[in-house]
Amino acid sequence: MDITLEEAGEFGTTDFTMTFKRDGAVISPWHDIPLEAGNGLYNMLTEIPKMTLKKMEVDTKAEGNPIKQDEKKGKARLYHGPIFWNYGCLPQTWEDPNVKGDENVGGAFGDNDPLDVVEIGAASLSMGSVTPVKPLGVLSMIDDGELDWKLIAINAADEHAAQINDVDDIEKFYPGTVSGIREWFRWYKTPDGKPINAFGHGEKALSAKEAVHVIEETNGFYKDLMAGKADAGKLWTNDTLVPGLCRPALACAWKDSALPAGPAGENCD
Amino acid sequence: MDITLEEAGEFGTTDFTMTFKRDGAVISPWHDIPLEAGNGLYNMLTEIPKMTLKKMEVDTKAEGNPIKQDEKKGKARLYHGPIFWNYGCLPQTWEDPNVKGDENVGGAFGDNDPLDVVEIGAASLSMGSVTPVKPLGVLSMIDDGELDWKLIAINAADEHAAQINDVDDIEKFYPGTVSGIREWFRWYKTPDGKPINAFGHGEKALSAKEAVHVIEETNGFYKDLMAGKADAGKLWTNDTLVPGLCRPALACAWKDSALPAGPAGENCD
Repeated sequence: MDITLEEAGEFGTTDFTMTFKRDGAVISPWHDIPLEAGNGLYNMLTEIPKMTLKKMEVDTKAEGNPIKQDEKKGKARLYHGPIFWNYGCLPQTWEDPNVKGDENVGGAFGDNDPLDVVEIGAASLSMGSVTPVKPLGVLSMIDDGELDWKLIAINAADEHAAQINDVDDIEKFYPGTVSGIREWFRWYKTPDGKPINAFGHGEKALSAKEAVHVIEETNGFYKDLMAGKADAGKLWTNDTLVPGLCRPALACAWKDSALPAGPAGENCD
Repeated sequence: MDITLEEAGEFGTTDFTMTFKRDGAVISPWHDIPLEAGNGLYNMLTEIPKMTLKKMEVDTKAEGNPIKQDEKKGKARLYHGPIFWNYGCLPQTWEDPNVKGDENVGGAFGDNDPLDVVEIGAASLSMGSVTPVKPLGVLSMIDDGELDWKLIAINAADEHAAQINDVDDIEKFYPGTVSGIREWFRWYKTPDGKPINAFGHGEKALSAKEAVHVIEETNGFYKDLMAGKADAGKLWTNDTLVPGLCRPALACAWKDSALPAGPAGENCD
């Protein structure tokens, strides 16, 4: 499957868009990239390469869900300092703002975004790239009362990926990383005069197994969203870009190198 | 004692200097401000106000030790992201580069600078201001093999200062602060392609009592430096600015509102 990235507008401004195309037709990086990459790996869509500042993200409300630079008061949003890891999301996941979390997260509701990923490997991943990653753990961040899971994962192609299978393996190969991620996300909004962010589960990073559970849960919320069982609000979930094509089917097509068609919302798992 | 700050050159460039004057005569913020502020407090000289980026510091090698912006490859040095706390140093302290640390810090030698302070209170302290602070703890940071202690302290005027007496009291009033400081300093040079910084003592922040010991030890190294018992290298330690005035005496004068004179290097404690 040949995915091309089409950039328009000036990078660094709110005019910038990165549109995803398959064989010339616009596709959505949120809906049309498959979640699973096989062998227990998941496809991470990189929005923000490591050591950069521009707050790029999938625009969940815009047609085709291009990557855009988040706006703050009409201006292109920047982190105050660079993020030290690659950052992005998992396609076909969603943190339902109508679903209440359990007592471990203080009953916080989802933040209405795809599941965020912090990728800890040595390589810098480029914006818009899709990388198979291994889930290692997850932090239950609570930002302004909303549950905003941060999946910790490693590029399957990283030189240490084979030796790092769970959150407790990270320290040996990439010391300081889990605590570094936690503190980065705790403090990063304070220069705006906002309070520090909180974490559920006693601030602990949960295990790889629990991380997979979060992936599956947010994929379930996504499926409900696409099946019309959850309130989409202003999210762009149409499939008018590739008429008649079932989005999960396109996702399967990615894996299977075939392109089945079907009614919108059909689940091809 | 009337201290005035005189700025010259453009702020944000390497031309900028902030010179300290007492009654019109240049004094050194390193040598002429007293270490002790009474009641177990110490005078912190703020170099970098919280939430700012410019790497301002006492120029230990320049005449009068003005505050300047640190240079990197000839350019004014910036942090990549803002520091979330007030940052500065304790006058009349020195980390002797010829003194080898113990096994807790891997035998690292001092970094040739005054003792750094991270002040955690709510108020922003301005560059060049002198603030009585209470020592709470200390991190033994090891940066590129050099021992670079980070004293954790609180502004004695902070609304919670009376309730925070040791490192373990911080979490209750300013949660996430000790871990935040540790990770900020662990990661802050990585955008330059440098490795993360290390910490001695199993990464633990030592107690207030141990922090006072570090203050006393680095004050001892300072006294040896000023008495000619340690190699000053290129450090500016003269007292030609206020001829005939003993620097520690001037420090005492600050506290006593008197101005004794004496031979250079005299210890008035």
